Amino acid sequence: MKRIESIQNATVKQWKKLATTKKERDKSQAFFIEGFHLVEEALKNKERVLQIIVREDVALPMLWDTDDIPMFEVTAQVAKELAETETTQGVFAVCKQESNTNLQGKHYLLLDAIQDPGNLGTMIRTADAAGVETVILGNGTVDAFNAKTLRAAQGSHFHITLMRMDLEEALAKLMAQDTVIYGTSLDDATLLTDVSPAEKWALIVGNEGSGISPQLLAKTDENIKIPMRGKAESLNVAVATGILLYRLIL
Amino acid sequence: MKRIESIQNATVKQWKKLATTKKERDKSQAFFIEGFHLVEEALKNKERVLQIIVREDVALPMLWDTDDIPMFEVTAQVAKELAETETTQGVFAVCKQESNTNLQGKHYLLLDAIQDPGNLGTMIRTADAAGVETVILGNGTVDAFNAKTLRAAQGSHFHITLMRMDLEEALAKLMAQDTVIYGTSLDDATLLTDVSPAEKWALIVGNEGSGISPQLLAKTDENIKIPMRGKAESLNVAVATGILLYRLIL
Repeated sequence: MKRIESIQNATVKQWKKLATTKKERDKSQAFFIEGFHLVEEALKNKERVLQIIVREDVALPMLWDTDDIPMFEVTAQVAKELAETETTQGVFAVCKQESNTNLQGKHYLLLDAIQDPGNLGTMIRTADAAGVETVILGNGTVDAFNAKTLRAAQGSHFHITLMRMDLEEALAKLMAQDTVIYGTSLDDATLLTDVSPAEKWALIVGNEGSGISPQLLAKTDENIKIPMRGKAESLNVAVATGILLYRLIL
Repeated sequence: MKRIESIQNATVKQWKKLATTKKERDKSQAFFIEGFHLVEEALKNKERVLQIIVREDVALPMLWDTDDIPMFEVTAQVAKELAETETTQGVFAVCKQESNTNLQGKHYLLLDAIQDPGNLGTMIRTADAAGVETVILGNGTVDAFNAKTLRAAQGSHFHITLMRMDLEEALAKLMAQDTVIYGTSLDDATLLTDVSPAEKWALIVGNEGSGISPQLLAKTDENIKIPMRGKAESLNVAVATGILLYRLIL
């Protein structure tokens, strides 16, 4: 195990960049995770874990299989430098991004310009829970590998296929495979309870403020509307996604 | 209109306390809101608006009926002092908390020790959208009138009845009115799709980490389980609440 004591160390600076900048994550096709739960989920797909970093006073669980993964021990000062929050657990990992762009599977969630990192993470977690195999991030959707999104998704990044693709391109491919495309809209839409889910489907959900772009909405097979019974004008996009996905899978 | 220019002014200090401390909100039975959307929603229940505060360069919409409400004009410096975020719209209001503890209505959401202010706000918004009349905050649930909760709820604080009550006491009252009590649990629970919703019901949802307390769970009529189809261990509590409420109302 290699030991690093200084925050001036080049490797530490590289980790910090990976943790905090999309540019570095895009360049290296990797990302940086923090905390026991996330590292444990990552280790279930061990080939995706490139490095593990542990604060000197932290003991890793005996059951973790970390054979052949490069390990780094760091001081409290270095761990603090790497940590997103004040109360860090002192365990981190560098993981590989997948570069899968094959559209295989029955259920897809397509995200059009989702802006809030917490919403994105919650939606990835919800898609995983509902059994969706693939989440496609369209243009304008925030990076899936920033710290807030990773935290909100609670490890679901390692359970499903995440890819970035222009959504018009994705729709063309999915429709060629007889996947039914559902949008969400208040106009010209089927009520949530009246939908008869297809066997293979893709659900598009849109930006927090403006919804799905008109160009995409023009290409859906059917739009679904969640009824507003009270006086709220709309739902949070992650909550709406949960309600829709659990309607479509059941 | 009264004009205030100094952040040392006693009224400004009082507003700031109201915006940032539960203690002051409890004492005065009031709360502090920010932004055009929230103030507009508040004005739809005009009797709840005690004061409106406007930055000197901001024009209020002509359609707002603010007759008889005390108005304050403040400098940019004072507005910045009062604002939660850097990008404030420069409009604020002091509102009255309701002190309603009558349990009237058909649909209730009971919150057992919800800790995250954003989750709480999203749940209040979701309850409103689903047509729930009353949200009861049990012991250990964060204050509903902090800035993050108000922002996430998008004005739903003014649409539904919010009250704080010991949940065992609330359950006793609701059961005496033949309201069916639904809990959420993974053990001894009915699958989401197999629930036959009662006409009058109350749904309890629990703490982000530990769920509903065993004492409360022992008193429910039926517990509901949301199926986990993928590898996620659980759902975000606000998303789960949305899925459950939209199952129960439909």
